[in-house]
Amino acid sequence: MQTLQGDYFAAYRSLKLTRDANGVLVVEFHSNGGPLTFTAQAHTEVVDAFYRISQDRANKIVILTGAGGEFITGVDWPSFGNAADPGVWSQVHDEGVQVLENIANVRVPVIAAIEGRAHVHSEYALLANVIVAAEGATFQDVAHFAAGVVPGDGIFTTWSYRAGAGRAEAFLLNPQPLTARTAYEWGVVAEVVPNGKALSRARELAALYLKAPEVTRRDMRVHFIQPLKERIVHEVGYGLSLEGASAADLLKSMQAKTQPAAQKSKSA
Amino acid sequence: MQTLQGDYFAAYRSLKLTRDANGVLVVEFHSNGGPLTFTAQAHTEVVDAFYRISQDRANKIVILTGAGGEFITGVDWPSFGNAADPGVWSQVHDEGVQVLENIANVRVPVIAAIEGRAHVHSEYALLANVIVAAEGATFQDVAHFAAGVVPGDGIFTTWSYRAGAGRAEAFLLNPQPLTARTAYEWGVVAEVVPNGKALSRARELAALYLKAPEVTRRDMRVHFIQPLKERIVHEVGYGLSLEGASAADLLKSMQAKTQPAAQKSKSA
Amino acid sequence: MQTLQGDYFAAYRSLKLTRDANGVLVVEFHSNGGPLTFTAQAHTEVVDAFYRISQDRANKIVILTGAGGEFITGVDWPSFGNAADPGVWSQVHDEGVQVLENIANVRVPVIAAIEGRAHVHSEYALLANVIVAAEGATFQDVAHFAAGVVPGDGIFTTWSYRAGAGRAEAFLLNPQPLTARTAYEWGVVAEVVPNGKALSRARELAALYLKAPEVTRRDMRVHFIQPLKERIVHEVGYGLSLEGASAADLLKSMQAKTQPAAQKSKSA
Amino acid sequence: MQTLQGDYFAAYRSLKLTRDANGVLVVEFHSNGGPLTFTAQAHTEVVDAFYRISQDRANKIVILTGAGGEFITGVDWPSFGNAADPGVWSQVHDEGVQVLENIANVRVPVIAAIEGRAHVHSEYALLANVIVAAEGATFQDVAHFAAGVVPGDGIFTTWSYRAGAGRAEAFLLNPQPLTARTAYEWGVVAEVVPNGKALSRARELAALYLKAPEVTRRDMRVHFIQPLKERIVHEVGYGLSLEGASAADLLKSMQAKTQPAAQKSKSA
Amino acid sequence: MQTLQGDYFAAYRSLKLTRDANGVLVVEFHSNGGPLTFTAQAHTEVVDAFYRISQDRANKIVILTGAGGEFITGVDWPSFGNAADPGVWSQVHDEGVQVLENIANVRVPVIAAIEGRAHVHSEYALLANVIVAAEGATFQDVAHFAAGVVPGDGIFTTWSYRAGAGRAEAFLLNPQPLTARTAYEWGVVAEVVPNGKALSRARELAALYLKAPEVTRRDMRVHFIQPLKERIVHEVGYGLSLEGASAADLLKSMQAKTQPAAQKSKSA
Amino acid sequence: MQTLQGDYFAAYRSLKLTRDANGVLVVEFHSNGGPLTFTAQAHTEVVDAFYRISQDRANKIVILTGAGGEFITGVDWPSFGNAADPGVWSQVHDEGVQVLENIANVRVPVIAAIEGRAHVHSEYALLANVIVAAEGATFQDVAHFAAGVVPGDGIFTTWSYRAGAGRAEAFLLNPQPLTARTAYEWGVVAEVVPNGKALSRARELAALYLKAPEVTRRDMRVHFIQPLKERIVHEVGYGLSLEGASAADLLKSMQAKTQPAAQKSKSA
Repeated sequence: MQTLQGDYFAAYRSLKLTRDANGVLVVEFHSNGGPLTFTAQAHTEVVDAFYRISQDRANKIVILTGAGGEFITGVDWPSFGNAADPGVWSQVHDEGVQVLENIANVRVPVIAAIEGRAHVHSEYALLANVIVAAEGATFQDVAHFAAGVVPGDGIFTTWSYRAGAGRAEAFLLNPQPLTARTAYEWGVVAEVVPNGKALSRARELAALYLKAPEVTRRDMRVHFIQPLKERIVHEVGYGLSLEGASAADLLKSMQAKTQPAAQKSKSA
Repeated sequence: MQTLQGDYFAAYRSLKLTRDANGVLVVEFHSNGGPLTFTAQAHTEVVDAFYRISQDRANKIVILTGAGGEFITGVDWPSFGNAADPGVWSQVHDEGVQVLENIANVRVPVIAAIEGRAHVHSEYALLANVIVAAEGATFQDVAHFAAGVVPGDGIFTTWSYRAGAGRAEAFLLNPQPLTARTAYEWGVVAEVVPNGKALSRARELAALYLKAPEVTRRDMRVHFIQPLKERIVHEVGYGLSLEGASAADLLKSMQAKTQPAAQKSKSA
Repeated sequence: MQTLQGDYFAAYRSLKLTRDANGVLVVEFHSNGGPLTFTAQAHTEVVDAFYRISQDRANKIVILTGAGGEFITGVDWPSFGNAADPGVWSQVHDEGVQVLENIANVRVPVIAAIEGRAHVHSEYALLANVIVAAEGATFQDVAHFAAGVVPGDGIFTTWSYRAGAGRAEAFLLNPQPLTARTAYEWGVVAEVVPNGKALSRARELAALYLKAPEVTRRDMRVHFIQPLKERIVHEVGYGLSLEGASAADLLKSMQAKTQPAAQKSKSA
Repeated sequence: MQTLQGDYFAAYRSLKLTRDANGVLVVEFHSNGGPLTFTAQAHTEVVDAFYRISQDRANKIVILTGAGGEFITGVDWPSFGNAADPGVWSQVHDEGVQVLENIANVRVPVIAAIEGRAHVHSEYALLANVIVAAEGATFQDVAHFAAGVVPGDGIFTTWSYRAGAGRAEAFLLNPQPLTARTAYEWGVVAEVVPNGKALSRARELAALYLKAPEVTRRDMRVHFIQPLKERIVHEVGYGLSLEGASAADLLKSMQAKTQPAAQKSKSA
Repeated sequence: MQTLQGDYFAAYRSLKLTRDANGVLVVEFHSNGGPLTFTAQAHTEVVDAFYRISQDRANKIVILTGAGGEFITGVDWPSFGNAADPGVWSQVHDEGVQVLENIANVRVPVIAAIEGRAHVHSEYALLANVIVAAEGATFQDVAHFAAGVVPGDGIFTTWSYRAGAGRAEAFLLNPQPLTARTAYEWGVVAEVVPNGKALSRARELAALYLKAPEVTRRDMRVHFIQPLKERIVHEVGYGLSLEGASAADLLKSMQAKTQPAAQKSKSA
Repeated sequence: MQTLQGDYFAAYRSLKLTRDANGVLVVEFHSNGGPLTFTAQAHTEVVDAFYRISQDRANKIVILTGAGGEFITGVDWPSFGNAADPGVWSQVHDEGVQVLENIANVRVPVIAAIEGRAHVHSEYALLANVIVAAEGATFQDVAHFAAGVVPGDGIFTTWSYRAGAGRAEAFLLNPQPLTARTAYEWGVVAEVVPNGKALSRARELAALYLKAPEVTRRDMRVHFIQPLKERIVHEVGYGLSLEGASAADLLKSMQAKTQPAAQKSKSA
């Protein structure tokens, strides 16, 4: 088993993993070294990656960050295939639940270091214990309501948990860039730092947390994440099912618009 | 059944219902066209109205608003009869639970457009997904602690859910007008607009939400309201029972004060 | 409003409602007076019927029963249309959640009187406080796994609640007729009576319960149903979403089987 | 503080407390040495007694039992005063919630030894980890539905938890003596023993449990009781409020029946 | 029993209890009249004190405050003995759960009046309905992460409940003094008053609440605290177990550091 | 990533994995081909194995079984090291929570086929949807109370969920072999078959379940396991912490007994 555990650092195209001598693991979301555009492959990879990260006791602190001055910026929709196909969505549902449970099960302090746009899957950041954001960082959800589907993959659950339900609903129903400063005022971001300094500040916090004994560090995470983990287990499966239904309806309505009138009458 | 469904628009004295060609339903609370003073009849009507609204799939968006430049301003206590009578309170309990469940079950986006005083049953507004409030709008609870009874009908549950428990408790224990601006800072109000503009801004948001496909629009509401719906089902029945006990005690204490000393000694 | 309330007795094709002078309402599921074959129209009707029953305080006790010596025997699948259409399933989902909440909200004792086959929607019976079953009555679920879809509409939730999860899972995964006697041993059925006597025994129990004061009778139901109501609110929406996804997959797999090989290669 | 702790053994009229050298505490419910008829004073005493028992770490095992060959047999209704008085019921509510929480917080194994009739407050016994019942023991609830009030004090919660909801509802709606054997088949009673042997068998079990280390013994109880404790905290307050409303309605209906016709017309 | 109830005012070294003619009880945490340094004895005392306070219906309002211009300032670690001893921690666990449940069960409005440092057990204050803080008051947690152990005793649960999870996690992971003003902006503190005025303002609020009838006053508290009480019952036992494990690990790591190399090799 | 997924079949010493052409995976617990004696290595392996099984969509049905005519028979205590060491227990805690979540996340029907003794970790079997047991199979828990520690690893949670809390508590407090027949009467075992036939009957059920479409099969599991998964997430972490404390106390008490009197007085 040991051999299986060791080699996950190089296993992913969308995540770059580096760990220093003190056990501080930096997880960098990227596409070819630049900002990550989320793909179906990335969706499968994050599930596996966060599970292995969570089980590897050599990781003492985990830092989540992006690449190229951004967190995550866009989605490659076609890579997911036909979302209206129940078999396709079944996989999205299962992976979507599993990845959040896996991040929640990272049993050491998790810090998110955000530069630029956290416009896709910002819920990964909100599963951190603390978020350090650069002044120019912005939060938005371009992957759901703006695209015509329900934000059911945990983005509502996590924003509601950390920012309050009223703010989360408005944020998701009328998606516009939210500044780091406003996210700080909402209690979502713990610290705002100059642009380019998010990761270095995250490393400082990591050094601080490393002073705690091993079990203290691990069980602090266990204690802090438990209420959110319970909400995720409770809410996200249903949310993803509703998102799947909405995606199928979106595709149906798009087909209806693009079908020539002739075909329409034929199908009726 | 179809015939029963159609005619509810004209069925209520306290609610004026109008729906435009796009399916945007405006629910206006009123007393003879002016600001609503809540009565026992209104209590029964809102239960029925929101159930029918929730079941009518021709409603695509629902906007809650008041009349005469106010949301809801007062209560006609005598209309409720003797609150110390267990049969009377049983009906208040059952209707009070049911109306909140019915609003929660409105499975399309709900927007509250608040002008003036939302001083009674502001929890109806807090069951909306977003609240648009005019600058001069104020929130208060004149119907419970100020009147000597427990705020158990869901007003604590909804304010606690949207503003946080600490603020909700202080707000309800020392009832004073809360400005729209403060409610915005608390995350309860999503947008503050000039006086007189709440409804028109709500209509703009409705137009925005209408761009989403039908199932997306409906399931977004289902997903967003689920945690609050669970809290309502969990908390409000008990809350109303405690409110009923407090109302009985209030009436007893008022009788004790108004009884002549002579009678008092007789009953002792 | 009173006028709207009064006339629901005659509003449904699939439910016959009769109420005696003591307020005992008998709800009889039927198709043209014989055993009910469940249709999409019936699905819509039960939602409305149980809401109105729940709100009408003239109902003092509610008895659920079938017609023609059966409870509910089959499903008219084509009446539901294309279950793979997200718009069609959205309505099934919304009605399916609502009907169970509405039965749970009948705030007077509910008794189920079962003769013959309770092979479809037996969860309606399991929302009663007590079930009286004739010796020859059987319970089965012919509408889900046997038909290739997830039993997500509350049938697992209610059987799990009353019979235990292990029995519920086996019962639903390998659907075979369960005798009244076994259901009694499982704690689901409260009394087994000779064939043809279920309704008359239910009436005897109704007479017994009527001796309790009004509020006692109502609040007993409120207290007893609360844990199951919370489970329904918590579980059934998700269950129906999963059932919808499985129905879409079933239709897809059926189409795949019936498509000529030529077409198959073309679509590949 | 130590001095306060020591002297609770002699503080109660309705509970006789004896502890052997091994720390096995026997709590005997009684009225003057015979079977306990529950009074308002007993209600107040059990709250205090079980709190002190729970806090005294010298108690290693707790055995609950009755006196005179019975567990608890009846209720002295007049001792509670006017249940329709909100101040009176407020105390019943507060004590009723507190006593069950206090028994749940006894953090050592609790064994109930039942002889004869457990016809009142059998939920105290169902808060034990195991129940040993004599062959002739019977369970019934003569204090609620039979008396015209809602069984909201935890008796439904505990019977539903241990016997299943279907059985609990039938048991409480049609109160008749339930034999020890049937309670065993339902999973409520762990062992049935010859008459007169319940306490001695409970002592044998106590001796068995004493073999476990101190923390094991304590934390076993903590672990086992936690789900039921959560249900009690969640359900019993509301249940007692509903019971209070039903008691007020019962008294009202009794007054209505006993009032001479002349007075009735006067009050109308 | 009455005699036991009366004399708890003088029973504690760390709490000074005074009650005015209106039933306003002031609970003052202190060490010899000055600011309280928390000890193991104080831990045991608060459990008992708050239980008795909660059961004594002569208390109409409860005010929590400190002494010597502070709330609670430090911890006397050695007084707790060897935290790595499972028997020692078992008592800490049991008392730690019980004290929070006991404060939650104080069934009258609770007001916290904070001057100076609330640097230890600030969760006691957060169990109040409203907190009045002097301008110079500060909140911090010097007893957990700063000391190397998990903040599992309810301090995360209460801060998360009142300030939001994001703020609570940052506050506890990087403990620094939080001003009264910031706590006000977070919704934790209800009112900020000039230094030295917290208690007098609390008394004014008490006078306001006393205007409500007895049952209203009591049941308002019951209604408001219920969601937090459920979280405490759900989360704090586990939290304290995790804190205990972390304390054992801390002691182990301290021993490892202080052991001479010679001994180390011997024990290996 | 694909390469990582494929090779887990050969990765474990304690689990033999075989999958037929239809995707029916048989998981066989064993020690060198004979009955499994549980070790620390096995504990680590089951976590990894069930995660990979759960993520591999080529598994269509999962069957759990033992080897050598037994399920799991014993525990190799020394392999776990010093349970009183907080670092050692931290790993047991984390793995113990994770393995049950991983089995719950196997999103296809799970069948347990039990021959002989299921005397250790029978909760793995109770996470199956159905249990087929040979006539001679017995259930017992030799690893907790019999050994002096709290049964906190999910064995209480699962037995309580499937058999009822009363039976689970008695079963765990007085561990004796429970026959397959009794487990069937309790609703835990779905079918009892002749000795040696459990696995073949499980394969027959697998063939039956394979008739359902892919998504139906997967989502049925998702729906059925959700309530138990929520209980596991809610209860097992705390349970394992309590078990850890009890193990430390057990070791302490064993040391106390074995220490010569001389040393004892020295340490005092």
